[in-house]
Amino acid sequence: MNKLELTLQKIKPLDVDVMKRTQKRLDELTKPPGSLGVLEDIAKQIAGITGNVIPELPKKAAILMAGDHGIVKEGVTPYPQEVTAQMVLNFVNGGAAMSVLTRHENADLYVVDIGVATDLPDLPNIIKRKVAYGTKNMAEGPAMTEAEAIRALEVGIEITEEVINGGVGLIAIGEMGIGNTSPSTAIISTYSGLSVKEVVGRGTGVDDERLKTKIEAIEKALEVNKPDPAKPIDVLSKVGGLEIAGMAGVILACAANRVPVIIDGFISGAAAVIASEIAPLAKNYMLGSHLSEEPGHRVMLDYLKIKPMLIMNMRLGEGTGAALAMNLVDASLKILKEMSTFAEAGISSKD
Amino acid sequence: MNKLELTLQKIKPLDVDVMKRTQKRLDELTKPPGSLGVLEDIAKQIAGITGNVIPELPKKAAILMAGDHGIVKEGVTPYPQEVTAQMVLNFVNGGAAMSVLTRHENADLYVVDIGVATDLPDLPNIIKRKVAYGTKNMAEGPAMTEAEAIRALEVGIEITEEVINGGVGLIAIGEMGIGNTSPSTAIISTYSGLSVKEVVGRGTGVDDERLKTKIEAIEKALEVNKPDPAKPIDVLSKVGGLEIAGMAGVILACAANRVPVIIDGFISGAAAVIASEIAPLAKNYMLGSHLSEEPGHRVMLDYLKIKPMLIMNMRLGEGTGAALAMNLVDASLKILKEMSTFAEAGISSKD
Repeated sequence: MNKLELTLQKIKPLDVDVMKRTQKRLDELTKPPGSLGVLEDIAKQIAGITGNVIPELPKKAAILMAGDHGIVKEGVTPYPQEVTAQMVLNFVNGGAAMSVLTRHENADLYVVDIGVATDLPDLPNIIKRKVAYGTKNMAEGPAMTEAEAIRALEVGIEITEEVINGGVGLIAIGEMGIGNTSPSTAIISTYSGLSVKEVVGRGTGVDDERLKTKIEAIEKALEVNKPDPAKPIDVLSKVGGLEIAGMAGVILACAANRVPVIIDGFISGAAAVIASEIAPLAKNYMLGSHLSEEPGHRVMLDYLKIKPMLIMNMRLGEGTGAALAMNLVDASLKILKEMSTFAEAGISSKD
Repeated sequence: MNKLELTLQKIKPLDVDVMKRTQKRLDELTKPPGSLGVLEDIAKQIAGITGNVIPELPKKAAILMAGDHGIVKEGVTPYPQEVTAQMVLNFVNGGAAMSVLTRHENADLYVVDIGVATDLPDLPNIIKRKVAYGTKNMAEGPAMTEAEAIRALEVGIEITEEVINGGVGLIAIGEMGIGNTSPSTAIISTYSGLSVKEVVGRGTGVDDERLKTKIEAIEKALEVNKPDPAKPIDVLSKVGGLEIAGMAGVILACAANRVPVIIDGFISGAAAVIASEIAPLAKNYMLGSHLSEEPGHRVMLDYLKIKPMLIMNMRLGEGTGAALAMNLVDASLKILKEMSTFAEAGISSKD
């Protein structure tokens, strides 16, 4: 059995008995039952994931997958492809938004070259696991082979296992890849049944004319490739991306190893859709973070039945929304662990 | 001139020139302009508040005002009034949700008895500034006198000035007061022009029958008192609360001293409405936090033109949503301070 199949076999449901005990504890704390809303939901979900009624605060990490996209040849974005590689250096040098926010959240940042179109310098904090020098132009044919898609999923799994073996218990996913809202749009259009026009957005800085070009290129990619929604790896290889596959692998590995994984915005949402199609139980291990400005993101979150916590008009990607959500996850676990019960505090109950 | 008038005189507009320079800096950072959404808005607002193009990270505090409400005699809540005093002890003993979340956010928590109905024990971390032993039943007449309302505003101002003099540069407001969604509903009904039925909610644990009782009591309070929306202190004294007045005082003092103040949920929103009616410029010093489950909260935030960042179905109050927003404020300032510019990182711009 290959790495991917082994991982899928390990994915099991949440521990419902533990979640019931956590719910009982939450209801004994000095607040009206349920009044902390999503903070309580997260605490209970993590209890069900980890099997601990009162989970310890986890060590945190973000895994950022970088890859390039052949579709940029169609003119879907105003940014040149070289920006992907330049931004990888910015991440590891600490100057990107995701660098700042992972430092802020006290999380390690793992930056992975899973498919950047050029060779990157040998630096200790760039994890070099290139599956290909970017995808092919999906408007002309499949973005990658199925073997490449599976390899990229496995790279995500392998790196995640290493990170988890290092003691990490909460993982955020993020990405960098000029042009990657296009494959993400193709993926959510395929699964939602909505047209490209209904789920497309402006990515980072697309004007009216270029938006028309972008829509046409994505529509062409779907026509040329005819991805089969019943076969998520078919969809991933034909209209996906290497970093999307890598993030889907991270999600599957988190589910297999019972570690909560925070989903970011539109592109990581596409990875979450693929992961949940490959292994429906994986959805239980996902935590939402923010609602991005990209219109298709709401469609994705509804499809995944994930509720975003942060509505901040962000549309940068990189994992920035997921990083901000880490603080909320820590808060939820501290609520469960540190609040007094009504009995401990000697507080009267309702009449 | 009294303390309140002196404070109002000190409230000035934001520094627009500094905000322009901050905007220029934000646009030079390695991200598409505006792509960090509200994080960028907050950074710019705090620059305009403090007068620093790149503000330092502030020392943080939450000020929690506790007071009781005569309206509880009408049966508007299932919780007994003694819970207000019991919760004050829970706050200072560290076991309440707000205790946990302020520790989590590395913020000091100041707990003020501004109007609890009973005498509290002498403990070093209870700030005793009782203006009255709770309000009177507003369904029968004014909740308090105008002199009491002004005194409560001034208590808020005085405590805030002490906190700011201690080096604090970011303040969250919070409250505790069994029954206090009722005066908050009366206040937002008065200013929005919407009926009590349209803005009322279930507070913490009100069932269908009690909701009817609550609506009738608030309607009666508005009929009996006829608060004049053109005179915010008239509204505050007739259908407000001591902790609501105290929080309005905190907001006014923050505005006068150019310190950003984070608004919490429905009750602190009522204080924000009162503060903005007393001094419209004070609105510029407010930061939103979460959208509570209480239906009138959205009406309030729209009235104040404040956008919430967190949508987590919370309805506890205490300042819990405002505490969670502190992490986002810190994040926004670190983005401004720590991100590289395009020039520094050698990253290509759009074509």
